[in-house]
Amino acid sequence: MARIAVDALGGDRGSAEVVAGALEAAKDGIEVVLFGPADLDGHGLELVVATEEIGMHEKPADAVRSKPDSSLVAANRAVGAGEADAVVSAGNTGAMLAAGLLHIRRLRGVMRPGIAVVIPARSRASVLIDAGANADARAEHLVQFAYMGSVFAEEILEVPNPEVRLLSIGEEDGKGNQLTLEAHELLRGTGLAFGGNTEARELLRGAADVVVTDGFTGNVALKLLEGTIQELLDALREEIASTAAGKLGGLLIRRSARRLRTRLDPDTYGGAYLLGLRGLSVIAHGNSSSRAVANAIRLAARGVEHRVVERLGERLPDRVASARS
Amino acid sequence: MARIAVDALGGDRGSAEVVAGALEAAKDGIEVVLFGPADLDGHGLELVVATEEIGMHEKPADAVRSKPDSSLVAANRAVGAGEADAVVSAGNTGAMLAAGLLHIRRLRGVMRPGIAVVIPARSRASVLIDAGANADARAEHLVQFAYMGSVFAEEILEVPNPEVRLLSIGEEDGKGNQLTLEAHELLRGTGLAFGGNTEARELLRGAADVVVTDGFTGNVALKLLEGTIQELLDALREEIASTAAGKLGGLLIRRSARRLRTRLDPDTYGGAYLLGLRGLSVIAHGNSSSRAVANAIRLAARGVEHRVVERLGERLPDRVASARS
Repeated sequence: MARIAVDALGGDRGSAEVVAGALEAAKDGIEVVLFGPADLDGHGLELVVATEEIGMHEKPADAVRSKPDSSLVAANRAVGAGEADAVVSAGNTGAMLAAGLLHIRRLRGVMRPGIAVVIPARSRASVLIDAGANADARAEHLVQFAYMGSVFAEEILEVPNPEVRLLSIGEEDGKGNQLTLEAHELLRGTGLAFGGNTEARELLRGAADVVVTDGFTGNVALKLLEGTIQELLDALREEIASTAAGKLGGLLIRRSARRLRTRLDPDTYGGAYLLGLRGLSVIAHGNSSSRAVANAIRLAARGVEHRVVERLGERLPDRVASARS
Repeated sequence: MARIAVDALGGDRGSAEVVAGALEAAKDGIEVVLFGPADLDGHGLELVVATEEIGMHEKPADAVRSKPDSSLVAANRAVGAGEADAVVSAGNTGAMLAAGLLHIRRLRGVMRPGIAVVIPARSRASVLIDAGANADARAEHLVQFAYMGSVFAEEILEVPNPEVRLLSIGEEDGKGNQLTLEAHELLRGTGLAFGGNTEARELLRGAADVVVTDGFTGNVALKLLEGTIQELLDALREEIASTAAGKLGGLLIRRSARRLRTRLDPDTYGGAYLLGLRGLSVIAHGNSSSRAVANAIRLAARGVEHRVVERLGERLPDRVASARS
């Protein structure tokens, strides 16, 4: 059974929320180890004492270097040392990346780790990679993200031979910026099921099993998606509440609206994989609820069971080497 | 009164739809000149005969060069020659850019024209620039877009001293990719009301009066916004229709939903300005309805009345020169 290191101090809602999520995941038989202060009420879960805390807005590299005994860094170190199979944190994303690079280290052949998130699209769940690990990227990085996303889609979403598309500003091959035009060429030369470009308007409809992009664009797209869904549902609720007929109608559609909200809720997956390291790292949303934390831990355990890191290690270096030649 | 050159062959819905929109705008007293084939039924509107047509998927530069007598190119040429004040087309965006650069030409000091669209955000209308004129951009281009967007916000949205923000992957100054970090520095040194970075999740809430970004990111953001709104309203309608209570509720909220849809409808503005040329160019959506075409023509006329091009010409070169020193 998977052993998961959980940063009890990660997240905006405080450690009690994280512990509640950890308890929920532990009920499924997942072995959870909390990393946090000595006085943390862990409700009987194993606790590794960490004396420092990294804040959400600290500079990642500085914080990881200057706080080796923080819960976030210690949890990453445990994975690097083989004392845990995966790390989960709802804390500082940049610090998770920095600590992962330092203590878990990259898989052989991986140039840059990438963040893979599941987009709850209508026709099929899609993996978006990179959702923000690297603000700047080269075309070769995008090719690696495509391989990583494919392994994710195969192992976690159970899609055989997943279709990969490149996020661009037109479906035609010749549409894009320098980066995507170059990546498009390279992707054509891989053994992946590359379906060409896709446009952002398709993202929530189900553009592809894997949608590849650089971390800046991916992060903008992910936040825009979340913000627009939230804003639109809020605006609709407000419009409905402004008339009597609307209010009654609102009651009648409540179940339908809730089903939709549940499908689109980022808490359903709970977190994103940071792929490309020698161990699994799962980054949860900063404002994760206990349910989201539990789902992030389950996602980590699932990745361990499906040997996602090993599969990446087996397949990535050779394939990427051939794509570059 | 403004004299507007309208490409009758632009758009997916055919020339009858464009003519209907032109007639609607002409009723407001706008002087419309149609550019299209000799047998076009212009319902009495002035017609300049153009014998060729540029398709939606033709390569822009090639099409503009090889079809000088196309309706799109001829309409642009009319503006360049001072025979019309502005051009409106729902045709090939890239061809509008190429024809504008060739026949209307850039304003002195402008490095790259930018596409400015109005985002119908909740708290205030926002100008997003560049929404896709340039797939690759440098930091200096983003600074020019900021100036152009400010003039747009002042003249068309009537916002005094508009707040400008830079679209990035975090609100903190140090968050971004190379391009935005550099642009952030330059924007700090301008006389604009620069409010720092904004995140994509704020876009539909009302991030700023002017949101500056490169054309690749801007185009992804705009299409994601449109696609997500459409998909979400469709998904909600589908969920509602799946139960009897939902169906009844759906009837009761219909008015509220329609108000929301109207606010978010891109047809309300009808088109986007291509800014930075010596004349005004308005690009309408490919699938514009007659209402959208009419609104695009009104937007063009409004820009002429408010002397948007002249204001840009007066203010842009000096300010940008000082930002670069």
